[in-house]
Amino acid sequence: MVSGPDQPGLVAAVTALVTRNRANIVSLDQFSDNPEGGAFFQRLVFHRPDLAAALPEIEADLAATLEPYGMQWRLTDQSVPKRMAILASTSDHCLLDLLWRHRRGELPVTVPLVISNHTHTAEDVRSFGIPFVHVPSQGCRQIRGRGGDPPPPRGQRRLRGARALHADPLRDFIARLGVPVINIHHSFLPAFVGAGAYKRAKERGVKLIGATSHYVTADLDEGPIIEQDVVRVTHADTAADLQRRGADVERAVLSRAVLWHAQDRVIRHGNHTIVF
Amino acid sequence: MVSGPDQPGLVAAVTALVTRNRANIVSLDQFSDNPEGGAFFQRLVFHRPDLAAALPEIEADLAATLEPYGMQWRLTDQSVPKRMAILASTSDHCLLDLLWRHRRGELPVTVPLVISNHTHTAEDVRSFGIPFVHVPSQGCRQIRGRGGDPPPPRGQRRLRGARALHADPLRDFIARLGVPVINIHHSFLPAFVGAGAYKRAKERGVKLIGATSHYVTADLDEGPIIEQDVVRVTHADTAADLQRRGADVERAVLSRAVLWHAQDRVIRHGNHTIVF
Amino acid sequence: MVSGPDQPGLVAAVTALVTRNRANIVSLDQFSDNPEGGAFFQRLVFHRPDLAAALPEIEADLAATLEPYGMQWRLTDQSVPKRMAILASTSDHCLLDLLWRHRRGELPVTVPLVISNHTHTAEDVRSFGIPFVHVPSQGCRQIRGRGGDPPPPRGQRRLRGARALHADPLRDFIARLGVPVINIHHSFLPAFVGAGAYKRAKERGVKLIGATSHYVTADLDEGPIIEQDVVRVTHADTAADLQRRGADVERAVLSRAVLWHAQDRVIRHGNHTIVF
Amino acid sequence: MVSGPDQPGLVAAVTALVTRNRANIVSLDQFSDNPEGGAFFQRLVFHRPDLAAALPEIEADLAATLEPYGMQWRLTDQSVPKRMAILASTSDHCLLDLLWRHRRGELPVTVPLVISNHTHTAEDVRSFGIPFVHVPSQGCRQIRGRGGDPPPPRGQRRLRGARALHADPLRDFIARLGVPVINIHHSFLPAFVGAGAYKRAKERGVKLIGATSHYVTADLDEGPIIEQDVVRVTHADTAADLQRRGADVERAVLSRAVLWHAQDRVIRHGNHTIVF
Repeated sequence: MVSGPDQPGLVAAVTALVTRNRANIVSLDQFSDNPEGGAFFQRLVFHRPDLAAALPEIEADLAATLEPYGMQWRLTDQSVPKRMAILASTSDHCLLDLLWRHRRGELPVTVPLVISNHTHTAEDVRSFGIPFVHVPSQGCRQIRGRGGDPPPPRGQRRLRGARALHADPLRDFIARLGVPVINIHHSFLPAFVGAGAYKRAKERGVKLIGATSHYVTADLDEGPIIEQDVVRVTHADTAADLQRRGADVERAVLSRAVLWHAQDRVIRHGNHTIVF
Repeated sequence: MVSGPDQPGLVAAVTALVTRNRANIVSLDQFSDNPEGGAFFQRLVFHRPDLAAALPEIEADLAATLEPYGMQWRLTDQSVPKRMAILASTSDHCLLDLLWRHRRGELPVTVPLVISNHTHTAEDVRSFGIPFVHVPSQGCRQIRGRGGDPPPPRGQRRLRGARALHADPLRDFIARLGVPVINIHHSFLPAFVGAGAYKRAKERGVKLIGATSHYVTADLDEGPIIEQDVVRVTHADTAADLQRRGADVERAVLSRAVLWHAQDRVIRHGNHTIVF
Repeated sequence: MVSGPDQPGLVAAVTALVTRNRANIVSLDQFSDNPEGGAFFQRLVFHRPDLAAALPEIEADLAATLEPYGMQWRLTDQSVPKRMAILASTSDHCLLDLLWRHRRGELPVTVPLVISNHTHTAEDVRSFGIPFVHVPSQGCRQIRGRGGDPPPPRGQRRLRGARALHADPLRDFIARLGVPVINIHHSFLPAFVGAGAYKRAKERGVKLIGATSHYVTADLDEGPIIEQDVVRVTHADTAADLQRRGADVERAVLSRAVLWHAQDRVIRHGNHTIVF
Repeated sequence: MVSGPDQPGLVAAVTALVTRNRANIVSLDQFSDNPEGGAFFQRLVFHRPDLAAALPEIEADLAATLEPYGMQWRLTDQSVPKRMAILASTSDHCLLDLLWRHRRGELPVTVPLVISNHTHTAEDVRSFGIPFVHVPSQGCRQIRGRGGDPPPPRGQRRLRGARALHADPLRDFIARLGVPVINIHHSFLPAFVGAGAYKRAKERGVKLIGATSHYVTADLDEGPIIEQDVVRVTHADTAADLQRRGADVERAVLSRAVLWHAQDRVIRHGNHTIVF
């Protein structure tokens, strides 16, 4: 991942670096939000047999090459899965969908633990061989933040039920986690920000319902959107129907967002994402 | 169309009426928003050879049959196309799409005239053999309302650029028209209410853009939704790309809403629509 | 469910029957494939408090009422869930998705057992509290047929891996089951009939992949289609990507088909389905 | 556009070439169908103020640089629109949609003429200021081929009604045109190859209908697919409904295929397309 101010020669410099480090480019995506002095983003995947040993050398070369351009960069070894803790609330379907996909090998992550403010999913989670931690939400919102106190290097976490937290504790919580947190919201944002999205969708009489997966920021439901999708509904669908049909979309959208994040396909830029 | 409080025997009463008037039911759709004392909606299409002559008699029977139930009803002869005036603003693509579909026989309406606050579409409109009326918007929003002063019985009008009108004149305008007005809004409402939807969609970084067709009420962009649709976009789409791709969705959504309205498939109920 | 030759007075006769049996119509859908002498299909849901006791009386009335019209009919008590056995092959994702949805209360069925020609899903199935039966496929395709020998009244079965059976045993198997069998095929039929659909989709270079759920007949992949859906793919998706993304569509399509079947929303008519 | 056998150093060589020719990379997309010895495809858009003058020099550099790698390449000046003749048959909606989009500035092409075997669109075409040529199809399929006799350099043509031609004349016709020909087929290929797709879709009882835009080859409906899309239908849609709703999809799919082709986003590779 390379990002920073767009400027001539940048792509040539990066690709020459890959060549002189005896690596082969597997894929390369790039985007400039304005060819005249805009921001530049690049995702480059390369293959080199003895990568682990060569990493320090390549990182040094990257630093030396990109420093004059003022670019930010990040180099990750895709053979090392990211660690992803899952924070779940009342609803269990997204949690179990992620665990199933993980077991089928669809998500290149390890799941060190699942944290929930409810206990009803404990048995299911443990049947996947994953530790379950119960952190009651009553009276001690601060404790919740502790769930992530040893943040894994380059790890990330997913948060469900973030909206149960008041804004300030949420800000603290995210700051203390120090890793990206991905939420699934049950509407096509920015429609129906906040709680009760399906009920409000029914009241407004929309013909589509949807879901949005986004990075959590201190501003409720305002974080950078990673993925969205919708499904058609009719006047005959009750609020319960919307919830059931929307759950299918929620699972699909969240799993795509988590997959892309785990594959380092998502670059955050202000309140936007670049998804390669 | 029949609507009113749901109650036992209603469907049997209506279908028996059709039978005793020697008509054959072609299609029947119905919906109750709550089987226990909710509202009931029905669309029943029947065929009877000499309908025009028999209409008064059937209408008298409907009145006598449905009065005890306290139901509202409407009987229209589908062989008589509705009259639909088109109000257009700067953008021409929805206007031309409607005229084209009309010419291909896809919309069972007659178009007595097109009204616009711009003149650049005049030649195109006249090439379809349809009168074009220019009503400049500067200084005299009231004049605009006059465009519809002889409202056709059971007709309807479509309004583009409704949001250029201040709220109060809009309320007056709609009241004076006395016919349904259908708008196309360039977002999946309730997201991006108001002007500049594509620009704001770009700023928010959404992954879907859409369009919404709704009946115009005095509350801007809050009227009953008839149809909505979306299309996927990416970080690489500029605001101009969103506008171009969104235009395709706008045309599709508006044409479906107009078709369904013209076929008497849409029943308004509070701020909702039942679309059969 | 009522089906048979369309004719005047039919709807009035059925709805009058409901009224005189002191029941209230909850929903009514109907369709005629040709108003001039075509086939007529109706699904009518009614509510009556003491239904179980009144069933014989209502059935007698239905027989007497519809016999003169030459109509077929079926009356089911929706408070009694259907029994659905699941036949699974190598792939486990559709099986587990159905079990999960069942556990969440999304599918109004009971699942008396799961039959598979593999054992790798046995533990998962039993964790749902459902009996698992292993019927090896080698050497004894006939045994497979026996899995369904006591067909539950008004039950149904779903068949995975039907194509592993030769045509004639399949015909026998279905005949001996005597209940509807629903399959999920991994393409948008009639494209890619038969095995290896994703591989062939990759070879053809399609931009959409999909799934089709249909009733199984003796003609491979030619049975009446209940539901289909697709998802976009690109040149960059490998055959494995197609399989992974297609699996999401397979689960969604199969679950909708099973739900609609369980709710008696699907009427078979020749090689078509009417889905209300 | 660069394509050929994938090999180390290729991307670095091309990007270094752009830099030493004092051009700035605007966008870069690439794809390798197999990192181990597969085929490599790249689309690179660069900006250089005095491009027209510098073209010969850059082309010479490209030839010298890419020759050792055995790569194919093509360099086009995007400020020069392609020339696109349109061949239309009975149906007019795709033709008129292309002309409208062209007039709105959505398609970066010039349209030197429209050729049809019918005359009913002549007046519409001429109202766009575009010459209309009528080539009757009876008795002289060879003449049809002549419509393209001065094939414009790097131009392309779109063919409607290709299937009216027997295979051999079609082969001859395409060979003599010597430019890419894009067709719109009224199904989601490979389903419903050949004529009467909507009628056959109705007979099969599919729940989705679609359209496919592809390059025309001598093998009917077997050419490389550029774009596809679908729309949902139900049992209640007649064959005429399918045709009307499918027409919307046909226009959308064809316009996207033509746009991408005009922007040099499509690379043909065997029977596939890479769409950047």
